[in-house]
Amino acid sequence: MQTSVRRHQRMELRTVCERDVGGVTKESRRDRQRREIKRDIVAEARRKLEEGGPSAVTLRGIAREVGMSAPALYTYFPSLGELFTELIVQSYKSLEDSITAAFSVLAGSDLEQRLAAGPVAYRAWAIEHRRQFNLIFFDQIGGYAAPADGPTVSAQTDVLQPIAVQYAEARGYSLIELLADSDLLDDFLGWWGAFHGIVALEVNHHLDWREPETIFRRHLDASIRGLLATDTTTRR
Amino acid sequence: MQTSVRRHQRMELRTVCERDVGGVTKESRRDRQRREIKRDIVAEARRKLEEGGPSAVTLRGIAREVGMSAPALYTYFPSLGELFTELIVQSYKSLEDSITAAFSVLAGSDLEQRLAAGPVAYRAWAIEHRRQFNLIFFDQIGGYAAPADGPTVSAQTDVLQPIAVQYAEARGYSLIELLADSDLLDDFLGWWGAFHGIVALEVNHHLDWREPETIFRRHLDASIRGLLATDTTTRR
Repeated sequence: MQTSVRRHQRMELRTVCERDVGGVTKESRRDRQRREIKRDIVAEARRKLEEGGPSAVTLRGIAREVGMSAPALYTYFPSLGELFTELIVQSYKSLEDSITAAFSVLAGSDLEQRLAAGPVAYRAWAIEHRRQFNLIFFDQIGGYAAPADGPTVSAQTDVLQPIAVQYAEARGYSLIELLADSDLLDDFLGWWGAFHGIVALEVNHHLDWREPETIFRRHLDASIRGLLATDTTTRR
Repeated sequence: MQTSVRRHQRMELRTVCERDVGGVTKESRRDRQRREIKRDIVAEARRKLEEGGPSAVTLRGIAREVGMSAPALYTYFPSLGELFTELIVQSYKSLEDSITAAFSVLAGSDLEQRLAAGPVAYRAWAIEHRRQFNLIFFDQIGGYAAPADGPTVSAQTDVLQPIAVQYAEARGYSLIELLADSDLLDDFLGWWGAFHGIVALEVNHHLDWREPETIFRRHLDASIRGLLATDTTTRR
């Protein structure tokens, strides 16, 4: 039974213009200070998450660590939920940076290598940031729900988009065509879900008795072979 | 970084003899009472889990609900960890029962149908029992670690074994051969991880903007077609 719609995710194209709008006006000194303090609070929250999981993240505990009273901290994050939203967004951003970095060294590489790069970077990040991976992908914070169509939604889109570009190319389409074609988009989401699942089992220690990397790599290589072998009559 | 080995999972064949050993001797009245009280405690724990997630499960809260003092309850479950272990085992058992029931109506069906039955039952159970699915598969309880080689390990084996039987047949092998062949076993675990991942994304509301069942079904059908189309020279 689906009681609440959480982290309602939607893939959409966002233009460079939309993404850069925030940086145009000059930041006031007060705004900059405020941003830096929020950054310190989130950094402390992430440290507590890494140490003890989501239940170790409390506004009171963070206020103590950053040398602030609890009421003062509330002026930056009025609720624990808003702090978690910011943590989730930053975790997505960190994952996105890893994927972008992986692609940046592959300019001119063949499609087979580019298809593998996204999932491989995804797995590497997840293993290095197990708590953040679980924070992003599994409902585990009692009473917390990410805002529908909020910043966590677009943050997830930003993670998937570069991977979707390669997938679309392998099927003989552009990203715009993939997003417009229901079957193609569903196939891509299934492709993501598949490697995501093997990573999720590894992150949560369900594959410790095997070599998880081998399982992941065999699945990935087979799925890429399958993609590239698709009958070209179905391709553009 | 892998700090602790949790729910160290291993697939192994267990014979009917091993599994039935416990039922041979007649249960004393005292043992039966004790078993019934433990069952009530776990039922209450599950109710609290379904309502508020793992953080809502506390020994003190459960004692109050079942009309028992906290110290009295400790004689049944000396720690919250032991209660969680029992909850996880029972959740696996419930998932196993769903899969077994799905197979029981398929005697004589063709392999294609039998290959789909396990994953489809797995998904249906997960959606009906989202909290229990996350309890089983994601590290989310601060400080809890399932005992290595403990009951949660064999409970997971019992869930996967009937699915592995069909997978082995599709590849032209028996279950015993699959367990002995490292590549084949890894491929099976990857096959599981793939449909598990799509289910995990759906359970945690990452696919609410699409029809998750369609994504799952397209992936499953394609993977079954791939399995059954495997060059027969690689099959027995």
